Amino acid sequence: MKRLAILTSGGDAPGMNTVIRAIFNKASREAVEIVGIQYGFLGILCKNFVSLEAEKVNDAIAAGGTILYSSRFPEFIEENVQLEAIQILREENIDGLIVIGGKGSQEGAAALTRLDFPTIGVPATIDNDIPATETTVGFDTAVNTIVTALDKTRDTANSHVRTFVIEIKGRRSGDLALWAGVAGGADFIVIPEQTANMTQIADKIKHSIERKKKHCLIVLAEKVMSASELTTRLKEEGILHIRQIALGHVPRGGTPSPFDRVWASKFGSAAVQFFLNEQFGCCLCVQQNQLVAVPFEEALAKQNNRIDLSLTLLNASISY
Amino acid sequence: MKRLAILTSGGDAPGMNTVIRAIFNKASREAVEIVGIQYGFLGILCKNFVSLEAEKVNDAIAAGGTILYSSRFPEFIEENVQLEAIQILREENIDGLIVIGGKGSQEGAAALTRLDFPTIGVPATIDNDIPATETTVGFDTAVNTIVTALDKTRDTANSHVRTFVIEIKGRRSGDLALWAGVAGGADFIVIPEQTANMTQIADKIKHSIERKKKHCLIVLAEKVMSASELTTRLKEEGILHIRQIALGHVPRGGTPSPFDRVWASKFGSAAVQFFLNEQFGCCLCVQQNQLVAVPFEEALAKQNNRIDLSLTLLNASISY
Amino acid sequence: MKRLAILTSGGDAPGMNTVIRAIFNKASREAVEIVGIQYGFLGILCKNFVSLEAEKVNDAIAAGGTILYSSRFPEFIEENVQLEAIQILREENIDGLIVIGGKGSQEGAAALTRLDFPTIGVPATIDNDIPATETTVGFDTAVNTIVTALDKTRDTANSHVRTFVIEIKGRRSGDLALWAGVAGGADFIVIPEQTANMTQIADKIKHSIERKKKHCLIVLAEKVMSASELTTRLKEEGILHIRQIALGHVPRGGTPSPFDRVWASKFGSAAVQFFLNEQFGCCLCVQQNQLVAVPFEEALAKQNNRIDLSLTLLNASISY
Amino acid sequence: MKRLAILTSGGDAPGMNTVIRAIFNKASREAVEIVGIQYGFLGILCKNFVSLEAEKVNDAIAAGGTILYSSRFPEFIEENVQLEAIQILREENIDGLIVIGGKGSQEGAAALTRLDFPTIGVPATIDNDIPATETTVGFDTAVNTIVTALDKTRDTANSHVRTFVIEIKGRRSGDLALWAGVAGGADFIVIPEQTANMTQIADKIKHSIERKKKHCLIVLAEKVMSASELTTRLKEEGILHIRQIALGHVPRGGTPSPFDRVWASKFGSAAVQFFLNEQFGCCLCVQQNQLVAVPFEEALAKQNNRIDLSLTLLNASISY
Repeated sequence: MKRLAILTSGGDAPGMNTVIRAIFNKASREAVEIVGIQYGFLGILCKNFVSLEAEKVNDAIAAGGTILYSSRFPEFIEENVQLEAIQILREENIDGLIVIGGKGSQEGAAALTRLDFPTIGVPATIDNDIPATETTVGFDTAVNTIVTALDKTRDTANSHVRTFVIEIKGRRSGDLALWAGVAGGADFIVIPEQTANMTQIADKIKHSIERKKKHCLIVLAEKVMSASELTTRLKEEGILHIRQIALGHVPRGGTPSPFDRVWASKFGSAAVQFFLNEQFGCCLCVQQNQLVAVPFEEALAKQNNRIDLSLTLLNASISY
Repeated sequence: MKRLAILTSGGDAPGMNTVIRAIFNKASREAVEIVGIQYGFLGILCKNFVSLEAEKVNDAIAAGGTILYSSRFPEFIEENVQLEAIQILREENIDGLIVIGGKGSQEGAAALTRLDFPTIGVPATIDNDIPATETTVGFDTAVNTIVTALDKTRDTANSHVRTFVIEIKGRRSGDLALWAGVAGGADFIVIPEQTANMTQIADKIKHSIERKKKHCLIVLAEKVMSASELTTRLKEEGILHIRQIALGHVPRGGTPSPFDRVWASKFGSAAVQFFLNEQFGCCLCVQQNQLVAVPFEEALAKQNNRIDLSLTLLNASISY
Repeated sequence: MKRLAILTSGGDAPGMNTVIRAIFNKASREAVEIVGIQYGFLGILCKNFVSLEAEKVNDAIAAGGTILYSSRFPEFIEENVQLEAIQILREENIDGLIVIGGKGSQEGAAALTRLDFPTIGVPATIDNDIPATETTVGFDTAVNTIVTALDKTRDTANSHVRTFVIEIKGRRSGDLALWAGVAGGADFIVIPEQTANMTQIADKIKHSIERKKKHCLIVLAEKVMSASELTTRLKEEGILHIRQIALGHVPRGGTPSPFDRVWASKFGSAAVQFFLNEQFGCCLCVQQNQLVAVPFEEALAKQNNRIDLSLTLLNASISY
Repeated sequence: MKRLAILTSGGDAPGMNTVIRAIFNKASREAVEIVGIQYGFLGILCKNFVSLEAEKVNDAIAAGGTILYSSRFPEFIEENVQLEAIQILREENIDGLIVIGGKGSQEGAAALTRLDFPTIGVPATIDNDIPATETTVGFDTAVNTIVTALDKTRDTANSHVRTFVIEIKGRRSGDLALWAGVAGGADFIVIPEQTANMTQIADKIKHSIERKKKHCLIVLAEKVMSASELTTRLKEEGILHIRQIALGHVPRGGTPSPFDRVWASKFGSAAVQFFLNEQFGCCLCVQQNQLVAVPFEEALAKQNNRIDLSLTLLNASISY
């Protein structure tokens, strides 16, 4: 019986459990043994190998977080650590590894591939920061959580005729801010991929106030600056009735959305199929709404970034 | 100043208001006057032309239903009714019409096109039943509502070790049942596009019971049969602990999901752009995750149906 | 070490797990051993005694359903069955039993009390049908779920200018329909505790239509009649644009509301305290917003029913 | 026809619109004219008197915020401002005023009462800071929003084996933190009404870590200190894996919960009845789960504070 190991790594994302469930059930049907590794890459080194129980795995289809736990493990960037990990995986008779995580985790998977360990990547992160894929498991859920918060903020902003700056976590990409901003009716979206001009933002807000608009929402990706910094700078531009909110880690949790669950299911099932076919060294991606396998190097290459910057133009054309 | 009329028609769908908002704001920037028609095609005949107020339109970005109201108006299939509608539109100096709705509504739009009235279609229906588009505004929200109900039902099914049949409304397509079934962890999904075999379903349930699985969920598209009929037939096959639920119209309402809002925004903005470019006779569609314009006849042709039947195979491979 | 057994019985209710968690953690601090009985009273007879694991119990604080499973077991009404249960409980060295459930379950608990087995009741049912308590664990969550459905239904009713009949499950009481109706803005609430007059309902709807009101919602407790029967009878009274929805078992599941969780926590903690004090034979109740212990007979006596029928008068005074 | 004015004041709260709706509909039945005052007490001075439209008011039953807008207006503490307000109300032939808001707003209403203007108070604030009432409109909804965020945070904390500090807004009272903490399974709740000891909190967290508990949640009322300050101090006590979140204004918005809507309906209907009976100078309150009218001075007196501090003992007895 072949042994397929799986781990979740980096920031947790809603739907990681749905991926695990799909892998586990598909593997059961195919007579592949699933070995869980707890706490991500660190768990390989610590030999946190566990077997999974069908009922617990299936009950987690709708659960946030990851039943395999996760960790950040920056030391995994070093080759000697990677080699030690591979040695342990071989000692445990692991025939292949599925890495479920975001950009950093897929870089770890790419390293194992370069060192000839059979590895497959499943993109799962709320940040949607893997260049070659249109979506990652967890992104849609996080957008949902943020937009729910934006809708509530709009109620309060409206009642008090105020401007709110809402800061969105996100290590690299502004995609979360972009989607949430369009869906939440933001007046302005500030992301690292595009230069923001304070005067321009302030003019937009002032224009709204002149037209008796009852509220303004500025959605800000934290990588650009903090909400309190932006608030201070807008006050300097003469915007007085302004408040700030930082949503923090909240959008990382919660039950995965159906969209994330369907893609999680597709990815999980496909990952086992790739393992059966002995196709390794690829990150599964969504391109043109289709599941494809992309070699790690290409999947992670900056120039393949699929962030849809036309959304800012769209937002400018339809904001009030 | 050019006058662009808009109407919502057929079953209401979450996100129709988000389309209206995008159209209205984009049109304002382009100095196009928006004329609202209440109650769909019937409203043309009844001359229910209204002007829209910016604040009300913008406050509706997150509101379910349609602020323009809707209706079913089967008489619009007759050419003399269509001709009368066109005459009224011309008397009102309408330079173009955007029809926001599902399959039936786009057929009405196609008829106006054949009679040379400049018309553009925006796909909005929870049924996702327009062949040429991968998604329609409202579909994702309805899947969300259904999966929330499935998750709750799983709690109860689990606690009582029962099978539940959950009936999903849907006039033509099984897409809603298919997506909700995969996301909700259904044991079996029964849709009109595929033949269901009672013994096969019953065997699957019995197999689950033998393995001490605590619950079974059967998701059923109403077009195949009613939940009570399926329940009766499964009882005949020896399934005893079985209950049924019909979700009815509930998934038609509610605040639109971010996914639906982003597409609603893209569709609305693009529809105005097509009007400005004088490109008519097309339904806006999503193909390979891109917004494209498809001539009505092609958009509605059965053979272009994009329902992803591989989802049933997927579900079979990952269900427990 | 004293051994305290707990079971959940009858229809499951959101918050049952929160009660179990409170009992378990409080008992751990007090050096009381908790013995779980699966599948309610039936589980005593089947000797489904289990020990509980701290992590699983605590992770369930927000989970719908019951990790101890439940069942309906009408045979428990017979004294010889009750005596057999008591014998088994004594053989297992159980020093006391906490019964978590609704009216039927508390009647079982009352029977054990009459036969001198030390028993304490915790009211948990979405039906709020235990006469002596103002609220039961699960009721608030179920009202939340129903009102969410009413809000969605209002969107659709509004868009199509229709009347909707919404049927609410509930074996005995109309409390669920009453609270949901007031909160959901129902035009009429039909409950078993009050006589409904078809002409009166129809007149109310007609009056609304005359005043151009865009929708009517009739909330109906299933014990009075089915939604389809009420719909038929209203059609006979001349109401044409009318649809029906039956919410079924859906409100039985889902994560418990904070209100239910706080009361679940109070009940669970108090139940252990009563066990330590050797105060048995009581159902814990809420009276005047305070937790009190009421002897079973009194707790279940019809004349102590706390359903607040003034809510129908209130609703009549504020409906539009 | 008598003229009854209403205003919403201070921080907005979910359910304010439900109060307005109840007042409006009840008043219509009683042939009382409702005069809306926009932007709270400031709106009296600015003569922002508006009439309300039945459809808009009724559509707002489930809408967050306040359709009458609100403001903070600290200058209203001065008697000459109050006298000017009363003069304007008299010039507008206002026969009575209903003030919907929290503690500061009811103090304004008390001042008008002392100056002999016929005033009635309805408690509406997420802070639940009016001493004489068990609940205020908006409190339950805010607890819901906070607990939803706690549940999501628990997912992430669990996945990464971390401690999280969650800061809850609240000007005076710790009630919001207390209820949310119990419902959300907090390990520790830090509120202004009770002294917090850093070593005690740190010991609790360390004890959890020793027992391999996967997460710790510390719920903090902002009045005690900021989340970042508490985090820093806990780090000094040796707690390393710790993160912080400040929920900010988000819990102020959103659709009101059924519990809030039912009380909002009772308050609104009762307020009109008190106006008809010419009973003024009282704040409506909930005591022992009953609606009562309490003279403003008594309603606002500190010694009548109904915060249930036993909840911290409860939480200590049931936390894991």
